[in-house]
Amino acid sequence: MKRLIKIGEYETGKLNNICDVAGVLVGHVTVEEGPYHTGVTAILPHSGNMFKEKVVAASFAYNGFGKSIGLMQIEELGSIETPIILTATLNVSKVADGLVSYMLKDNPEICITTGTLNPVVMECNDGAMSNLRDRILGEKEVFEAINNAKGDFLEGNIGAGCGMKCHGFKGGIGSSSRVITIGDKKYTLGVLVNSNFGSSNGHDLVIKGRAMGELIKDYNLKQEEDKGSIIVIVATDAPLDYRQLRRVAKRCEIGIGKTGSYAGNGSGDVMVAFSTANTISHFDEPVEKSIVRFSEDHINKFFKATVEATEEAVLNSMLHSKSVVGRDGVKVKSLNEYKELFSDLLEK
Amino acid sequence: MKRLIKIGEYETGKLNNICDVAGVLVGHVTVEEGPYHTGVTAILPHSGNMFKEKVVAASFAYNGFGKSIGLMQIEELGSIETPIILTATLNVSKVADGLVSYMLKDNPEICITTGTLNPVVMECNDGAMSNLRDRILGEKEVFEAINNAKGDFLEGNIGAGCGMKCHGFKGGIGSSSRVITIGDKKYTLGVLVNSNFGSSNGHDLVIKGRAMGELIKDYNLKQEEDKGSIIVIVATDAPLDYRQLRRVAKRCEIGIGKTGSYAGNGSGDVMVAFSTANTISHFDEPVEKSIVRFSEDHINKFFKATVEATEEAVLNSMLHSKSVVGRDGVKVKSLNEYKELFSDLLEK
Amino acid sequence: MKRLIKIGEYETGKLNNICDVAGVLVGHVTVEEGPYHTGVTAILPHSGNMFKEKVVAASFAYNGFGKSIGLMQIEELGSIETPIILTATLNVSKVADGLVSYMLKDNPEICITTGTLNPVVMECNDGAMSNLRDRILGEKEVFEAINNAKGDFLEGNIGAGCGMKCHGFKGGIGSSSRVITIGDKKYTLGVLVNSNFGSSNGHDLVIKGRAMGELIKDYNLKQEEDKGSIIVIVATDAPLDYRQLRRVAKRCEIGIGKTGSYAGNGSGDVMVAFSTANTISHFDEPVEKSIVRFSEDHINKFFKATVEATEEAVLNSMLHSKSVVGRDGVKVKSLNEYKELFSDLLEK
Amino acid sequence: MKRLIKIGEYETGKLNNICDVAGVLVGHVTVEEGPYHTGVTAILPHSGNMFKEKVVAASFAYNGFGKSIGLMQIEELGSIETPIILTATLNVSKVADGLVSYMLKDNPEICITTGTLNPVVMECNDGAMSNLRDRILGEKEVFEAINNAKGDFLEGNIGAGCGMKCHGFKGGIGSSSRVITIGDKKYTLGVLVNSNFGSSNGHDLVIKGRAMGELIKDYNLKQEEDKGSIIVIVATDAPLDYRQLRRVAKRCEIGIGKTGSYAGNGSGDVMVAFSTANTISHFDEPVEKSIVRFSEDHINKFFKATVEATEEAVLNSMLHSKSVVGRDGVKVKSLNEYKELFSDLLEK
Repeated sequence: MKRLIKIGEYETGKLNNICDVAGVLVGHVTVEEGPYHTGVTAILPHSGNMFKEKVVAASFAYNGFGKSIGLMQIEELGSIETPIILTATLNVSKVADGLVSYMLKDNPEICITTGTLNPVVMECNDGAMSNLRDRILGEKEVFEAINNAKGDFLEGNIGAGCGMKCHGFKGGIGSSSRVITIGDKKYTLGVLVNSNFGSSNGHDLVIKGRAMGELIKDYNLKQEEDKGSIIVIVATDAPLDYRQLRRVAKRCEIGIGKTGSYAGNGSGDVMVAFSTANTISHFDEPVEKSIVRFSEDHINKFFKATVEATEEAVLNSMLHSKSVVGRDGVKVKSLNEYKELFSDLLEK
Repeated sequence: MKRLIKIGEYETGKLNNICDVAGVLVGHVTVEEGPYHTGVTAILPHSGNMFKEKVVAASFAYNGFGKSIGLMQIEELGSIETPIILTATLNVSKVADGLVSYMLKDNPEICITTGTLNPVVMECNDGAMSNLRDRILGEKEVFEAINNAKGDFLEGNIGAGCGMKCHGFKGGIGSSSRVITIGDKKYTLGVLVNSNFGSSNGHDLVIKGRAMGELIKDYNLKQEEDKGSIIVIVATDAPLDYRQLRRVAKRCEIGIGKTGSYAGNGSGDVMVAFSTANTISHFDEPVEKSIVRFSEDHINKFFKATVEATEEAVLNSMLHSKSVVGRDGVKVKSLNEYKELFSDLLEK
Repeated sequence: MKRLIKIGEYETGKLNNICDVAGVLVGHVTVEEGPYHTGVTAILPHSGNMFKEKVVAASFAYNGFGKSIGLMQIEELGSIETPIILTATLNVSKVADGLVSYMLKDNPEICITTGTLNPVVMECNDGAMSNLRDRILGEKEVFEAINNAKGDFLEGNIGAGCGMKCHGFKGGIGSSSRVITIGDKKYTLGVLVNSNFGSSNGHDLVIKGRAMGELIKDYNLKQEEDKGSIIVIVATDAPLDYRQLRRVAKRCEIGIGKTGSYAGNGSGDVMVAFSTANTISHFDEPVEKSIVRFSEDHINKFFKATVEATEEAVLNSMLHSKSVVGRDGVKVKSLNEYKELFSDLLEK
Repeated sequence: MKRLIKIGEYETGKLNNICDVAGVLVGHVTVEEGPYHTGVTAILPHSGNMFKEKVVAASFAYNGFGKSIGLMQIEELGSIETPIILTATLNVSKVADGLVSYMLKDNPEICITTGTLNPVVMECNDGAMSNLRDRILGEKEVFEAINNAKGDFLEGNIGAGCGMKCHGFKGGIGSSSRVITIGDKKYTLGVLVNSNFGSSNGHDLVIKGRAMGELIKDYNLKQEEDKGSIIVIVATDAPLDYRQLRRVAKRCEIGIGKTGSYAGNGSGDVMVAFSTANTISHFDEPVEKSIVRFSEDHINKFFKATVEATEEAVLNSMLHSKSVVGRDGVKVKSLNEYKELFSDLLEK
């Protein structure tokens, strides 16, 4: 896909999205009908059986005002054993139950001859645009999103991003990637966000250092309390361990901040980072296994790549979105309607 | 209720359970039919609208290998805004969705004119005794448990405790309380556990300092990997703040340890502590509100009371339980079948 | 003092520094002789006996690659009981010992009839400019800095800021403040930083959204591994509690990020926030004390003020600094030598 | 050394102390003169240059009411780069400065061509028995303790344990070890404590499950506020990583609790765990290095071994201690003066 805006210095991967990390797949289910503007996005760290072959992971709640589930166990065990599903806040439980169904299907041993399962479902609140009280998403949508998952995907108001607002504009799914070269090795790091934060009138938005609030004079939705969230998923093929991934996950907030966020009270800012290297077998892990450790001396490049890719992913989430009329006729404009204010900052 | 076993020195409240903390209610729904030995237990910090009148709270995951939900926001905001529901691991999502339904019913503003909701649902794995893959519990059971909730309750294999095993014996719901006197003030602290930990053959069990493993010679279930959990809820009417409640929550593990646990890998040991003092209004909180702060200089008594009450609650969970035949004919014996080995330790 | 650069929207206090929070005092001792470019900066939350009258506080280590001391107890007890001293990395211990001496002098009960003392000393590495191995700072400088402390102070290469480098330019002490109006109440929040981070060639520096790296073509110090740090102290007169101050402390990183940091591996980014309201008496704390609780519903203003003031404080630390020749003849230029590249962004 | 008391089931190593972990050395310096009953204990993870060859490590503050230093960086980087020194509270700074001197001596690159250094110094308060305000320990004692360090050592009132009280009796340095067999592999885990906690009249002491408080009728020191601490160091040769070592460190508290502690307010309970496997080179770490990962499926044995060895180490610290007269004539009795109350619990 053509790059929309260039943030930072590192090169992007081929697609400039999280699927540039080999093996990572993404699938969407979008529901736009009547009062519903909602959906589900599935991120698969690999296409195999995630329960049988777990990935190393860490999480960080910069602002824990949120209802994502599964993070406590990630922090304890440093691993993820299901696809990661993004959806709408009140719908987390039904979607998590759907994810459990999906995993049980392929893993008849769970709760019979082996232990339980830790579904990872993360959320933003699409209640401003969608009737969220009905919680219409469940097993069907989870199966579909996982089965849909491919090595490339659309961004903007799609999947879990369907009902998102970011800085008062249409937000949602955005992604970006970076290629990191160390000696003759190349690593890839990819970021996927679901953006739903910021003040509702574009006031605080910053694009590539340009404060947009002063420019967008006619953009006058009434000011609301910030009640959104942002979810950030970071994937890499570098063999970072739990502790290193936790450090990487923390860096996302700087990228978010550069787009104008101050991590408002009501905005859960929650990150999960995983590595596709050094996977962990559920059934066949030997007592001691030879793995590769990545040197902390070179981790700076991953920090910088994470900051860059997160900022770009947030902007991509807005630039890929179209104007939408939500529940009760609420219009949420695409940032693209104001393109003349920042078109010089975009890639040609 | 008659006290079964006396742990420590502080006096108990009138009931010797968590409902000794004024306002706290507990309700159970038990499902025992066919392959199902499962249920739901609801702990209500007060009988009002929990969303409109939140309680100050904190959590601590001594071992985060568990699937409880809602803890991230407790840590961020230091409050709880729903009843706390205990249930079985894979059933957490359906039960959480039921809890959302319950709260939406009484709070039409949620996701319309105000923000979302943080359901708190905590779990232990009853898969060894019950068909957990079917996830049979949901909205119906949640409503029933909350509506059932009263100022006293049964312990043992009931509610969420139905399918629990503790040290290889029948475990489940247990509770105990302590009265703390400081000058002319009396405070109450209550503990409720759902016990599901320990080795499966009684090997590590300790009763009031007596190591039972050597005594229970004929108790020979095959040794299994420890895959259980323990949930501990602490309530107090003392005006402890978030930070102080977090310190209290941490102390529970010592009480658990005294019954013979070493907090095994597969055993999520998760605590939530709340105070019924200094509640927080969702809609009418003034910018500055006068509250009462409890002095750290007197917190030791709460630490000691927590350790005592947790140990006693775990033992109570076992002493109140009856022998049961679980799924696939698995017999789980009551500890009471071995009473002659420790009857001298019990209250007359 | 004349404001140098205006970041964000909130008004500053009268001095635009941390002393705008009533009662807060700051004192410096600067050592510039021979190979030494180092010093000590003392921040006094109030001018009374800090041990007898503690302030509520919290800390956050965004990047814990640092040697600051005293933070563990701040997190456990939510309070600070000494002045906060900033100094150079290897000198932390000697300075902490000097701080202990200072406190013992006025508190004969310590370690005799009452408990011990938690000195808070935070550090950045001035080894690039100063002979740090000699650790020349101690009791004498601590006493002097505390005794020097007044309700206003100089910024730039002074006190602990003497040997700092920030984005390759001369960094050091910077400060800024914000006034927050809620209804008819006015609160003040002040930030003080010791800035010592960033790449050594100005490459990543951002001033008010303008990326300076591309502009500063002739600035070619050799690229070094980022091994610096930033310490941020936040003070407020609003009655925020421990948990709320922890949330505030976290927000500092966004302000730092906006000046171009990605929180490099070797850069400890460590924050402490305290409130001068609701102080805690060491000897006379009643069991229950009436205090004021600040509503979470209004905390967003403090988050935004923190982000703004931190960004401005970092820039102030550079704009107030003069070019210096450090140990072994290393020249570190003032950012002001490049003023023509950004003078349009400065206040007139 | 003859085993004094047998806790748990696993076998001990040859010495039943932390030096059973190959390479670990321990050295003491004891100062007993006039009003001083204090000292320094050094634990060396290996006998080489710790800065050049770091060990993987984690820490856990069950109760962070303490003044230990160096833990923040352990948590960030998962490693230790100096010997670990134990000493008295107010003396931490001088001792840390002495440790810096020791490390600078052998590492001329620090603060010249490479970064700084993170000294790890942990403390308990010996102020009840010793004049701690004078802070008489420093560089001389640190050098001596490190240079003294050998593959075996004395326990009880020696080194940093000199002025310790535990449950009102003479406490101090205690140690124990366990051998863990998995298949045909043998691992060793060793624990060293400095015990200084508990009520001052033996009231809460538990020996092998026997509550001693009721037995020690004539032991009537006046009841004091608990103001002590316990430091626990865990060493293992198993290739546990940072996250796994953090889990191990957490388990120590259960062992402490079994001796009768409820982790009193004023008692900092702080643990550090390290592995001698998979060391990290400061200068020669390749980008990717092949290391060994230990399977979580077998970590339970390490948890149980940690609980057992910690309980035994605490008891050893008391059983190895002699009665002492401290500052101002305060007599602190050895637990051995009451041996008839528990001699049946001791090994023959």
